[in-house]
Amino acid sequence: MSSVIDLLKSHRSIRKFSDQAIEPELLEELFAAGQAAATSSFLQGTTIIRVTNPEKREKIAELAGNQPYVAKAAEFMIFCADLKRAGNYCEAYEMPFEGDFTEHFIIATVDVALMAQSLVTAAESVGLGICYIGGIRNNPGPVSDLLELPRGVYPVFGLCLGYPDQDPEIKPRLPMSVIVKKEVYNEEGDQETIEQYDERIRDYYRTRTGGGHGISWTEQVATLLSEKSRPHMKGFLEEKGFKFK
Amino acid sequence: MSSVIDLLKSHRSIRKFSDQAIEPELLEELFAAGQAAATSSFLQGTTIIRVTNPEKREKIAELAGNQPYVAKAAEFMIFCADLKRAGNYCEAYEMPFEGDFTEHFIIATVDVALMAQSLVTAAESVGLGICYIGGIRNNPGPVSDLLELPRGVYPVFGLCLGYPDQDPEIKPRLPMSVIVKKEVYNEEGDQETIEQYDERIRDYYRTRTGGGHGISWTEQVATLLSEKSRPHMKGFLEEKGFKFK
Repeated sequence: MSSVIDLLKSHRSIRKFSDQAIEPELLEELFAAGQAAATSSFLQGTTIIRVTNPEKREKIAELAGNQPYVAKAAEFMIFCADLKRAGNYCEAYEMPFEGDFTEHFIIATVDVALMAQSLVTAAESVGLGICYIGGIRNNPGPVSDLLELPRGVYPVFGLCLGYPDQDPEIKPRLPMSVIVKKEVYNEEGDQETIEQYDERIRDYYRTRTGGGHGISWTEQVATLLSEKSRPHMKGFLEEKGFKFK
Repeated sequence: MSSVIDLLKSHRSIRKFSDQAIEPELLEELFAAGQAAATSSFLQGTTIIRVTNPEKREKIAELAGNQPYVAKAAEFMIFCADLKRAGNYCEAYEMPFEGDFTEHFIIATVDVALMAQSLVTAAESVGLGICYIGGIRNNPGPVSDLLELPRGVYPVFGLCLGYPDQDPEIKPRLPMSVIVKKEVYNEEGDQETIEQYDERIRDYYRTRTGGGHGISWTEQVATLLSEKSRPHMKGFLEEKGFKFK
């Protein structure tokens, strides 16, 4: 259909990078490609903090749950949802500030993800590999302190970028019939489809780990939702001014 | 640098579409491209509801704040954050369900946005135009009822897709120095840069509306944050099982 569609379909996360640096001109192009993504209500609610200091990178790698590629990738940056930049102008124009509603949180978080994903596609189009680092939300307070993030700004995820030094398989996704519905939400037939998919995922993990018992998709996601995942997030966000009103 | 980067940089929202339909095979490819995007903890927390029924499209166009292209675009779909699909397996495996933390909300919402943005890039690569419809959050309850969304699923945004019947200008983005920071969050120099940018945006609107007083970026975003934006969202989400614990 298009080479871009082939590119998008070939995505896999890269966790091992060569030493090759990313040219500053290319990096600028990646940022520009990301910035061109849609932004809700024209908010432009993303701030990217590019982290180059090696000690800081090591520290964040540790805070993100010991992910060494955070320190080793050619580039590492943290994508922040930013309501401060716009909020500054409420004060300047003597308007009341009401930007702490759940809706504002959604707008800013979605803005960040759209921009990041366009930047990622741009990167992959020139042969770079990427890995999103949600693990920075393990320790959002210390990470924010390292980046000197003010009130109104929170770190959504990190992103590693670099030239790949590995060639992992593409991880199979849920069959489309489970993901795309017509007219209404409807789970008919999904259970059987997901059972078959679970087998594929078990095989995928068995192949990758060279044997042993593969874990299924349903086991993984049921575990995710059976855990009080990062229970500090709400308190952290409230402190940063995201009040979920 | 790459034709993909040029493609990404050429994005603008399309709000007027030709009557040309999107071939089913192409539509499937777009979904597949979207699905290949990264997904946090392998959750795959997106469900897309494709709406084809004309009366339903009209109704949603109205609920989204009278956006006629919702009814008129070749395709319209609603991207939902879905914790139900995974949550079903907590029950199946007799695990406790704890998937109502703020963190789970973030994971699912980011998943949706990443998938949508890859789908959008795929669409734009074959000459389609798109428009995100955050306006469905004006009336998330009635929209959810129309789509029969169960607990654990919420509509994040809609997406119009079709062949463009207009050729709008690219809307200038904030200068990169305001968006991308090195090592720490730092607003040095931003105020002056934003002042100049405000002038560009005023010009952009003056040109588009054929004269008259253009509104600046800072005026727009200060207004957004001075309003209790969609104050129903929190209550709606809680009812749908997103508890922000």
